[in-house]
Amino acid sequence: MNGNRFGRLFQVTTFGESHGEAMGCTISGCPAGLELSEEDIQADLDRRKPGQSMITTSRGEPDDVSIKSGIQDGYTTGTPIGLVIQNKDARSGKYEPFITAPRPSHGDFTYSAKFGTRNWGGGGRSSARETVNWVAAGAIAKKLLAREGIELKAHVNQIGDIEAPEVSFEEMREHSEENDVRCAHPETADEMQELIEEYQDEGDSIGGSIYFEAQGVPVGLGAPRFDSLSARLGQAMMAVPATTAFEFGLGTEAAEWTGKERNDDWEFDSDGNPTPVENDHGGIQGGISSGEPIYGEVTLHAPTSIPKSQQTADWETGELKEEKVIGRHDPVLPPRGVPVVEAMLALTLVDFMLLSGRLNPDRVDNQPGEYDTDYHPSNPQNE
Amino acid sequence: MNGNRFGRLFQVTTFGESHGEAMGCTISGCPAGLELSEEDIQADLDRRKPGQSMITTSRGEPDDVSIKSGIQDGYTTGTPIGLVIQNKDARSGKYEPFITAPRPSHGDFTYSAKFGTRNWGGGGRSSARETVNWVAAGAIAKKLLAREGIELKAHVNQIGDIEAPEVSFEEMREHSEENDVRCAHPETADEMQELIEEYQDEGDSIGGSIYFEAQGVPVGLGAPRFDSLSARLGQAMMAVPATTAFEFGLGTEAAEWTGKERNDDWEFDSDGNPTPVENDHGGIQGGISSGEPIYGEVTLHAPTSIPKSQQTADWETGELKEEKVIGRHDPVLPPRGVPVVEAMLALTLVDFMLLSGRLNPDRVDNQPGEYDTDYHPSNPQNE
Amino acid sequence: MNGNRFGRLFQVTTFGESHGEAMGCTISGCPAGLELSEEDIQADLDRRKPGQSMITTSRGEPDDVSIKSGIQDGYTTGTPIGLVIQNKDARSGKYEPFITAPRPSHGDFTYSAKFGTRNWGGGGRSSARETVNWVAAGAIAKKLLAREGIELKAHVNQIGDIEAPEVSFEEMREHSEENDVRCAHPETADEMQELIEEYQDEGDSIGGSIYFEAQGVPVGLGAPRFDSLSARLGQAMMAVPATTAFEFGLGTEAAEWTGKERNDDWEFDSDGNPTPVENDHGGIQGGISSGEPIYGEVTLHAPTSIPKSQQTADWETGELKEEKVIGRHDPVLPPRGVPVVEAMLALTLVDFMLLSGRLNPDRVDNQPGEYDTDYHPSNPQNE
Amino acid sequence: MNGNRFGRLFQVTTFGESHGEAMGCTISGCPAGLELSEEDIQADLDRRKPGQSMITTSRGEPDDVSIKSGIQDGYTTGTPIGLVIQNKDARSGKYEPFITAPRPSHGDFTYSAKFGTRNWGGGGRSSARETVNWVAAGAIAKKLLAREGIELKAHVNQIGDIEAPEVSFEEMREHSEENDVRCAHPETADEMQELIEEYQDEGDSIGGSIYFEAQGVPVGLGAPRFDSLSARLGQAMMAVPATTAFEFGLGTEAAEWTGKERNDDWEFDSDGNPTPVENDHGGIQGGISSGEPIYGEVTLHAPTSIPKSQQTADWETGELKEEKVIGRHDPVLPPRGVPVVEAMLALTLVDFMLLSGRLNPDRVDNQPGEYDTDYHPSNPQNE
Repeated sequence: MNGNRFGRLFQVTTFGESHGEAMGCTISGCPAGLELSEEDIQADLDRRKPGQSMITTSRGEPDDVSIKSGIQDGYTTGTPIGLVIQNKDARSGKYEPFITAPRPSHGDFTYSAKFGTRNWGGGGRSSARETVNWVAAGAIAKKLLAREGIELKAHVNQIGDIEAPEVSFEEMREHSEENDVRCAHPETADEMQELIEEYQDEGDSIGGSIYFEAQGVPVGLGAPRFDSLSARLGQAMMAVPATTAFEFGLGTEAAEWTGKERNDDWEFDSDGNPTPVENDHGGIQGGISSGEPIYGEVTLHAPTSIPKSQQTADWETGELKEEKVIGRHDPVLPPRGVPVVEAMLALTLVDFMLLSGRLNPDRVDNQPGEYDTDYHPSNPQNE
Repeated sequence: MNGNRFGRLFQVTTFGESHGEAMGCTISGCPAGLELSEEDIQADLDRRKPGQSMITTSRGEPDDVSIKSGIQDGYTTGTPIGLVIQNKDARSGKYEPFITAPRPSHGDFTYSAKFGTRNWGGGGRSSARETVNWVAAGAIAKKLLAREGIELKAHVNQIGDIEAPEVSFEEMREHSEENDVRCAHPETADEMQELIEEYQDEGDSIGGSIYFEAQGVPVGLGAPRFDSLSARLGQAMMAVPATTAFEFGLGTEAAEWTGKERNDDWEFDSDGNPTPVENDHGGIQGGISSGEPIYGEVTLHAPTSIPKSQQTADWETGELKEEKVIGRHDPVLPPRGVPVVEAMLALTLVDFMLLSGRLNPDRVDNQPGEYDTDYHPSNPQNE
Repeated sequence: MNGNRFGRLFQVTTFGESHGEAMGCTISGCPAGLELSEEDIQADLDRRKPGQSMITTSRGEPDDVSIKSGIQDGYTTGTPIGLVIQNKDARSGKYEPFITAPRPSHGDFTYSAKFGTRNWGGGGRSSARETVNWVAAGAIAKKLLAREGIELKAHVNQIGDIEAPEVSFEEMREHSEENDVRCAHPETADEMQELIEEYQDEGDSIGGSIYFEAQGVPVGLGAPRFDSLSARLGQAMMAVPATTAFEFGLGTEAAEWTGKERNDDWEFDSDGNPTPVENDHGGIQGGISSGEPIYGEVTLHAPTSIPKSQQTADWETGELKEEKVIGRHDPVLPPRGVPVVEAMLALTLVDFMLLSGRLNPDRVDNQPGEYDTDYHPSNPQNE
Repeated sequence: MNGNRFGRLFQVTTFGESHGEAMGCTISGCPAGLELSEEDIQADLDRRKPGQSMITTSRGEPDDVSIKSGIQDGYTTGTPIGLVIQNKDARSGKYEPFITAPRPSHGDFTYSAKFGTRNWGGGGRSSARETVNWVAAGAIAKKLLAREGIELKAHVNQIGDIEAPEVSFEEMREHSEENDVRCAHPETADEMQELIEEYQDEGDSIGGSIYFEAQGVPVGLGAPRFDSLSARLGQAMMAVPATTAFEFGLGTEAAEWTGKERNDDWEFDSDGNPTPVENDHGGIQGGISSGEPIYGEVTLHAPTSIPKSQQTADWETGELKEEKVIGRHDPVLPPRGVPVVEAMLALTLVDFMLLSGRLNPDRVDNQPGEYDTDYHPSNPQNE
């Protein structure tokens, strides 16, 4: 299995199972000279971590990240960054009825059939706990992007049949972290919260979706055809656990628009360069970024772990049985999915910044005069 | 730019521009011993080629494929298969107003900004003509899959606001090639055809979507997390020109389903192995195939090349101008997109068949006497 | 920088610097069902570790490996194996004269010029300490290979101008670990030891070479042309720190042999299959393994860290200065290089075993009753 | 088989067999804006092509290259460059005795055992004819490198036991193409020629070696550890057909040098930057280029196709037989190997120029007025 690596030049390689000893990832391709501390990473991990509210699982993971390599005196060295996050609160006992019987719509059966094993501890490698690695790596990507003027944000725009009205990028930044649902529209957030609690009380769970947007992306990112920006985002987002749909720009709605309606005319920007009048194209044309904001949406199905009774088939006894998935589970995924989607967006963009030569792969650009001989004494970290 | 390669073990590497001399691709990783002729490939190319009906572009390309290597005596040799398809009917004159001004919502601007060039001939590398390579490679993938009992099919299930009712896999196979729209529901196909002609008459174009399904996929394909089956399908399908959304299983609808509703209980199949009662999960669980049919949907926006007047910005003159995209263009993309979507599905699946060891990477298993004259007895695997 | 990954299907991704907190690597692509413990890995780490004799550095690293993931109940699960090895005895103080001046023929200057940093602690990422990761990963590869009947071994066959006579594979296995030099010819080992001590006493160091051999390699490994078995071994071995030459078969001697002399005639083996009469080709023909033993040689230059006075150029002061590299260093590299060369050989071979389908990428074949409690019956491959 | 691709960012993907219809390769990652014509490529192909002298095979291949894509108005467009070279003079009849019996020390047996086929036409994919693709791609790489001030050259420095004295880079450039042997030392070339003819007359063949050197390589190329510059060169050169050894810097001689002897002291260059006093390190330190010339050597064994009688084992008849390899073959490989070694050196270096950000991956910097009619003003990198 080679599915634990993402990125061409900014590469993230992960390991870890839900109830194993630790999660971890190695980031290769981060240029030298980026100021970076564990706190930078921790901030995003805290947004993803369990137990942060009533509508998340109560598993008690502090998710403290430890940087093992790649940093010297507070700056990256250009060499691989090794991160480890201990698992502290694994309690596998609760999965016992499902050791020899797959949980409905989980990865239990497919993993077992593939590997001939039964990693029953919280789903093992198939658990969404893996995304702690993505969020950690994504935090580094975000820091690099921010230096280049690229900002990105996601928020929850649908839970069940409750959809949030359109919000601006600024509203997303301002409001999405103010409530437990991570919806940037406060009134809708309240409704969503209520709906989630209803399902939670019933022992059920509910689906939803996440809207994402990136601003400041320069023209020219993307490697069509198979590695177009949309294709790579498609892979990145469809890798997010429980995702069943990825859309950018008009998404599924585009089926109903005519060419004339959807096409964005050209005008000139203040520098005299062509710029689209509108952005129905979602920031990507011909698979390459157009300079307009990139936006889209990801649908996440309802969590499969529910305390309601469900039928499973025990391959040891050969019997069908009704079981409840007892444990500490989220009644809904998008609120904790927001930092995960942001991470995958950041990882995709930073990789293309390197691939397009807009980011120096060896080291971030120094201030003029600061790096004036061939040699390095001018690097801030050595002064 | 490194976007011209797809696949990990079954690798397709493409070249070619819309109005260049030829298109071509190299397939690496096809096992030896597969019976293969140009006719096998041509059949699918003919389904994709222009000029096949009134609702496709009238560009006159025979799309004759020529196999340059990798075949001996009608069988693959296990070495790279080189394919070349000549471009015959390129007429770049028609693009003249847009040489120094980007066509609305095309890849003109982004390609030019990235590469500092203006490949004005039919969009150059950004043209959907590239997909002739994909369909050619996909035909080989389909042949390999068929040997393993994997069948796949796509059809057009939406044009504008006309949606086809659900059809069975058998209906797709039987009916989707019977009409120009490639919709497996004949009555809906008629309605779609009418709608397309309406937009065509207006000088406009319209969007739509394609439903795809694969049957006979064994349990265990997919390399979670970043290369889960859904992630790789996401990349494959989002690479298809004009795609704005990829869905599998319930797709965007999953947002509104509860866990209890969506979860598929387990029962036993006739061999005593667990099998899901339903297939709301779309054939993929935990990123790995479950043995159930894999199905999903791809949305394609309306063609951007329309004979209606649109505004563009000429960077040579610095003036805005109203221009029509004269040329030979499709009024709708899904009908010709069907073989493209099938090809990308086939390429994704065959790659995972190799990655999971279910297909021998060196050679397909020979039937005794079928290929034994050139066969070498010394490999223990064949004794 | 993306140089921290080796392998196509059996992938090793590493991190760590000489004086950082920890070394570590993630192994992806190890099939499920392999019995594996930390002890299996530790045995090879102990052969590589510092301080094991008078002719190795006295740095006191226990090199205890900790498995963080990928193992359940003593067997691999098919998911990524995360390994971490703490650095315990880093003393960077000794490098002070060289903080602003590069050590002669080290990687100090090139790393600094590339990354704009000065990772002065023991050479940082450029240190041979990195090979602790390779040996750890290699130990897992060896275990997999041994299951398939592939055995490999290396020994020191030259130090300075002292060359060992040819020894058999059995002699290598029996004698190479009996002496500190790791030369399988005991008398030569004594001479080598004496020579090394001489140079050590003078404050100098000396070069040497390592002979390696693999037996039981099946016919058919290698992916010509660019990934031929010889090309991949070339990359693997030239990555070993201090290597200046890689040879297989006749190596540099082949320049002087005629075709008739070097060509190996064919005869039949006991099964009636063609087999070469001799093995002057070194087990590889046309870039693919021939079934004969694979053998070759790697030359390692003398350690660059020597207590003799050498001239360096201080970029801070702009002055030339004479300095000695004080610290704990090896007077010769091949003795500790033996497990490193074996590891790279094993990693290369196991990757091709997977690529050629000879190893099942999902799981090793289980012995009945050996691992069946957690075993899932539904995979047709195991029935 | 996935061995037909070389390079990370500058990627070459090849196809073709000795006696198939055509050879071809696709180059991905060549920046836009490079002036390029078929003549640029042809010049190097002519240096490699058969029939150029009495000491090369008489096979009559013009090796005319045809560019199918990636060029517009004489400049690269940044999109994949498709090249095709027709095979004109394939005469497979001569191989008949070896259809069911492997030629000694060829790739016949290993290819057949791997793929279960017998591609008897001139060795099929295992033939050195493949290198026509490498030389074609290498010619483009050389053009890119020359723009950056990087020059490279190779010459034949040993045939049998005749070794050329050391020559300067300038001598290599001036003299190596003056004689059929491609040895830059004219007197030695004469001796070599004589020796080759001697072996040729006897119906035998002889080995030799090629020395290569690159000048003007900037500091900082290489991605240690597994993709160090030496490791990647190792792979590149060991992929060259018939190579049995790769050396850089002191090569195998390094075994006998002490640290003090081999270490290169530091002084200051005219810009006040540290620079090594000598270049015993071969231009690579810690796996990264030091700014000094990169030099090394490749050993090629004697051609295996000889008209002398040799024993083979016919697997159809089960009989041993004595056969001569009739055909048109080279009596020695290095003379035609010189452009091949240069190509692999160029491909390795250009890839690292892109990976290190020293070459803009999207386009080369344009000279003002040189390419500005098609030039798009909107990219900030060009303002």
